[in-house]
Amino acid sequence: MSSAKYDVLGIGNAIFDVLVRADEGFLSRHGMTKGGMALIDEARAAAIYQDMGPATEMSGGSAANTIVGVANLGARAAYVGKVRDDQIGRLYTHDIRAAGVAFETRAAADGPATGCSYIVVTPDGERTMNTYLGAAQELMPADIDPAQVAASALLYLEGYLWDPKNAKEAFVKAARIAHGAGRQVALTLSDSFCVDRYRGEFLDLMRNGTVDLVFANEAELHSLYQTSDFETALKQLRSDARLAVVTRSEKGCVVVSKDGVIAVPAYPIEKIVDTTGAGDLFAAGFLFGLARGAGYEKAGRLGALAAAEVIQHIGARPQVSLKELAQQNGLPV
Amino acid sequence: MSSAKYDVLGIGNAIFDVLVRADEGFLSRHGMTKGGMALIDEARAAAIYQDMGPATEMSGGSAANTIVGVANLGARAAYVGKVRDDQIGRLYTHDIRAAGVAFETRAAADGPATGCSYIVVTPDGERTMNTYLGAAQELMPADIDPAQVAASALLYLEGYLWDPKNAKEAFVKAARIAHGAGRQVALTLSDSFCVDRYRGEFLDLMRNGTVDLVFANEAELHSLYQTSDFETALKQLRSDARLAVVTRSEKGCVVVSKDGVIAVPAYPIEKIVDTTGAGDLFAAGFLFGLARGAGYEKAGRLGALAAAEVIQHIGARPQVSLKELAQQNGLPV
Repeated sequence: MSSAKYDVLGIGNAIFDVLVRADEGFLSRHGMTKGGMALIDEARAAAIYQDMGPATEMSGGSAANTIVGVANLGARAAYVGKVRDDQIGRLYTHDIRAAGVAFETRAAADGPATGCSYIVVTPDGERTMNTYLGAAQELMPADIDPAQVAASALLYLEGYLWDPKNAKEAFVKAARIAHGAGRQVALTLSDSFCVDRYRGEFLDLMRNGTVDLVFANEAELHSLYQTSDFETALKQLRSDARLAVVTRSEKGCVVVSKDGVIAVPAYPIEKIVDTTGAGDLFAAGFLFGLARGAGYEKAGRLGALAAAEVIQHIGARPQVSLKELAQQNGLPV
Repeated sequence: MSSAKYDVLGIGNAIFDVLVRADEGFLSRHGMTKGGMALIDEARAAAIYQDMGPATEMSGGSAANTIVGVANLGARAAYVGKVRDDQIGRLYTHDIRAAGVAFETRAAADGPATGCSYIVVTPDGERTMNTYLGAAQELMPADIDPAQVAASALLYLEGYLWDPKNAKEAFVKAARIAHGAGRQVALTLSDSFCVDRYRGEFLDLMRNGTVDLVFANEAELHSLYQTSDFETALKQLRSDARLAVVTRSEKGCVVVSKDGVIAVPAYPIEKIVDTTGAGDLFAAGFLFGLARGAGYEKAGRLGALAAAEVIQHIGARPQVSLKELAQQNGLPV
């Protein structure tokens, strides 16, 4: 195994976020399930947007948010995701590169516009996402550069990649290359409804060794094993995954490995403004910790710290230097 | 004079804001004058954007921000400004309509893209704007609907309209129609460098009665009369304008009329995050007060309150209901 050019390479749906504050009535009026991610077509996107108040826009996408966090913490990071060569795609490309991430996926010259997620943030800070995949549907196995994957110590993939029709092939191709080069592969389960769509396949990925590390929140874990009992689900996770991290909102996280279970507390915060990106930034901190050989507990604390930053403002990308924040909190960087 | 359909109609450069936090070094590296608005061409826009960090986007434009504030306070508001029929133009159109503003200006089908301002917010909260006018340059006298102007109690125009080549004709046309219908016309001087470019013309507009009400901040006032002495400038302003309001940041504002000078304090705030839109939202509150017949002092207090809200977050559009905020502060709405 040669030395790595990148600490973490992420692959995901490249999605631009259109964020709006609205009350619970907006969710029920549009039949939205609070806290979830619903895939929508162009017509529904138009209908939702039409009824939305004035919005704020910024780049998003689950794995992209994570990779931006990894780079912001000071590691070498790269991203693969598909935008269209349109105005929003150019904003997207700017933002991820400006965050210090290598991003070279060719933008689609035709076909659907850059994907957008219409995100409703309710007064309690919870976010409800309505995602039009757009150009993200065009991610193909050919977009995976074998040399780049082989040169990345950790490959990070999002479960959402199971939604667009060709991306899962890109996913599997990348995982195979990574393992062939002696690298590690991580997967986030993304969303409990996503788990519900692809439960069997996700379990296969874990059991057949396609992924080495799994990120899940409690809802995703319960959906994966179709049980409402946390300990039961955790026990099954421990037998299926070599390494797994379950995030539990204000209760912190648990790191599950063959060696045992470690609980790490959440960072206290003043006020939750917008939970968008909480899981993504947790993964960023944890992956960064692993990349620095920090051990599971410190990696968990880095994850908790990055998540705490991102839920205290609108949007899923960090607004401060996470590297400085980690230093101020006595964490390794 | 018939009863008005709109309380305030604003005309301005329709500009989408691309906001980034950066330190003073970024300003000096790019030769930017802190606190100002510089007009830039496409090449310079590309160069600045290339060097900018990850950004947040939202709709802006000085008069548009004001009009959104007027609508947010609960008055009937309309806006005229030119975007291109592109992705950013559609975001822009959505946001202003979603704020409750009537916006029917036809988007340009070709020519330059929707205008963008690359706004650098330094750690002290001061904003430095670099504006690519784009489609805003295409605003023409034909975009002014005489019936709409005549049906608006107050016409609000921005000094920035002097920059694009045909907009000043649209400005003068609208002012003539408004006065013909017995309406009032207000002008904001926009920016001290803008005043420096068009000093003589702005003074003419005031002295020949094209405008009835002038908004200026201290820097603009000093630039207008080319004096560093506030009292000297104020005395001249009082002789040139029927009614004028000078905003003085944390010192509040002074309302100047033939009857005298009234000072109104600023609202205390916790922390300035981003001054973008401070003057725009002050004007919103003041115009709303006038529309409600609130008297100069209360109008000034409404302006101060709206300005205080907008400088405590990123971006130039209100993030709360100003109507509720005004009610909580015992101000008429």
